Amino acid sequence: MIEETNPELTNLQQIGEFGLIERIGQTKKFVHEQTIKGIGDDCAVTDPQGKKVLLSTDLLCEGVHFDLAYVPLKHLGYKAAVVNFSDMLAMNVKPAQLLMNIALSAKFTVEAVDELYKGIHAACEKYGVELIGGDTSSSIRGMVLSGTVIGYADEEQIVYRSGAAERELLCVTGDLGAAYAGLRLLEREKQIFKDNPAVQPDLSGNDYILERQLKPEARIDIITALAEMGIKPTAMMDISDGLASEIGHICKASGLGAHIYLNRIPVDPSAASFLEELKVHPGVAALNGGEDYELLFTLKQSDYEKISKSPDITIIGYMSAASEGIKIETPDGRVSDLTAGGWNAFQ
Amino acid sequence: MIEETNPELTNLQQIGEFGLIERIGQTKKFVHEQTIKGIGDDCAVTDPQGKKVLLSTDLLCEGVHFDLAYVPLKHLGYKAAVVNFSDMLAMNVKPAQLLMNIALSAKFTVEAVDELYKGIHAACEKYGVELIGGDTSSSIRGMVLSGTVIGYADEEQIVYRSGAAERELLCVTGDLGAAYAGLRLLEREKQIFKDNPAVQPDLSGNDYILERQLKPEARIDIITALAEMGIKPTAMMDISDGLASEIGHICKASGLGAHIYLNRIPVDPSAASFLEELKVHPGVAALNGGEDYELLFTLKQSDYEKISKSPDITIIGYMSAASEGIKIETPDGRVSDLTAGGWNAFQ
Repeated sequence: MIEETNPELTNLQQIGEFGLIERIGQTKKFVHEQTIKGIGDDCAVTDPQGKKVLLSTDLLCEGVHFDLAYVPLKHLGYKAAVVNFSDMLAMNVKPAQLLMNIALSAKFTVEAVDELYKGIHAACEKYGVELIGGDTSSSIRGMVLSGTVIGYADEEQIVYRSGAAERELLCVTGDLGAAYAGLRLLEREKQIFKDNPAVQPDLSGNDYILERQLKPEARIDIITALAEMGIKPTAMMDISDGLASEIGHICKASGLGAHIYLNRIPVDPSAASFLEELKVHPGVAALNGGEDYELLFTLKQSDYEKISKSPDITIIGYMSAASEGIKIETPDGRVSDLTAGGWNAFQ
Repeated sequence: MIEETNPELTNLQQIGEFGLIERIGQTKKFVHEQTIKGIGDDCAVTDPQGKKVLLSTDLLCEGVHFDLAYVPLKHLGYKAAVVNFSDMLAMNVKPAQLLMNIALSAKFTVEAVDELYKGIHAACEKYGVELIGGDTSSSIRGMVLSGTVIGYADEEQIVYRSGAAERELLCVTGDLGAAYAGLRLLEREKQIFKDNPAVQPDLSGNDYILERQLKPEARIDIITALAEMGIKPTAMMDISDGLASEIGHICKASGLGAHIYLNRIPVDPSAASFLEELKVHPGVAALNGGEDYELLFTLKQSDYEKISKSPDITIIGYMSAASEGIKIETPDGRVSDLTAGGWNAFQ
């Protein structure tokens, strides 16, 4: 947080809500053919050009979803946008536009808000998304960010959670558990700093897990790659709450069970070693940690050849009948029930 | 607020986020042809059927936009939905769908959340809107509501703020200042109760101003009536921040000035008499009070005959050249500059 008392900084009250809207509204000319009217009227207007419209919205609250003691505002703005984009990509659709609501308490300066918007704009630029609206408001205490993402697609392109079938392959992208590891690292260093402000935070050698927590990316590259390979997943969602709970959602929506192999779940070596230091099983972090923003999807077995060489896609198991439940198999061959809390054998 | 310690009430933690989503998701079957997929996937999906898409989003924070000391949760849910609908109607378009994000602190029970959603559902039902998504989240302190409304229209139907022309009529619907009067009444009674909890609140005879504050309606009836009369406003917005500031927005967007007659601004008699009791000029409340959710619009002079008999529409002035500025004329014939803070003659 930038100090309020710095005379070079501008109090939010000095420019007011309308001043803030004008400041935020100073964006480049829209390039999407689907964007007709952005910030500056009662509504934004878009042209779906014959496509279906997809919408998703997310709420981030200070103290629950982020801690400004260690999250830079620019990163926060970036993440607030990206978590929305991830929901759109999980439908196999690229995000097109974003609405962002922001509530701020009096402690924030205009310069702090500029930092936040730099992050939002950076994410929009990277993902080809246009910021077309939002509400700015004051809050009694703390910051709240509420984003709504809009995308367009033909019905044939959209992938729901409910389309999986028995014996299909269950896949994840990238690796899991690192965002949770990064959070634990930041919390540890915050505690050390609290106990002794003279100690400098020791974040060295942990770049990867920190970046996964502070500046996550959504897998737009996978959506592009799958389209290029001519693959349409049968069911898909993003992994924001942890793999175990997301598998449960796909199984429930598709009316199926699943069989997962613990040692197939991809965990980055640096995340695994940090988690082991904390006496956390990397598999538990991958299953329950959350915030990885990777994709979980099911594929027909006939697509196996096409994806088998992709380093970014790992098959972690297969879909089974609902009556078989959701099972996880450990390397020693033991099979247990997988719940959103982990798996029973380890509890 | 319902007490947490009542054993008949259910703690939010007992059902968890997914339990809450299931509870909220138990809505009726969708009837809008434009609603394809509601709550239960990463995105909601809609079919604009060849129309343009309109989107607006609003954020309400406890302590800033509402005070749970005197706002019943059902009314709050209703209002949170209606303020979004009002933004859509201000574009001359009826709202079709709603996404609602809610952040709640641990003090809220499941029963309290049910009350809130009763209000949201009641508003949706009344306005023909379908709740198709939203995020539920915890907050460290207080409640946050963030709604996003979606509507569909042909481009010819949409009314922007920027379409007004010189010499056009400037009109408002209903009456203004009553929501502000209601807020002042509630604040007064809250203070009296704080000073002496034995005193019962005296709200008698003030039903109208209380309802305007606690359960505002958006003017969907006016949008229907204008369409039936074959009238399309040239510019329009809703009056949420106060008439003076909204006139400024239309003038700026349309590149014009305006001339307003103070004694033409409609104020309900019961609101006027309560405001006079408080030594607040009713015109000041109408110009700056906000939260009335009436519509402000401009019409071609040729539409005068058509609207002249509507009791719900009042002509308060006319649009002029930008060089003439925004002026207000008091009954004694004095003309002053109108600013978002009121008018200078009275300051």
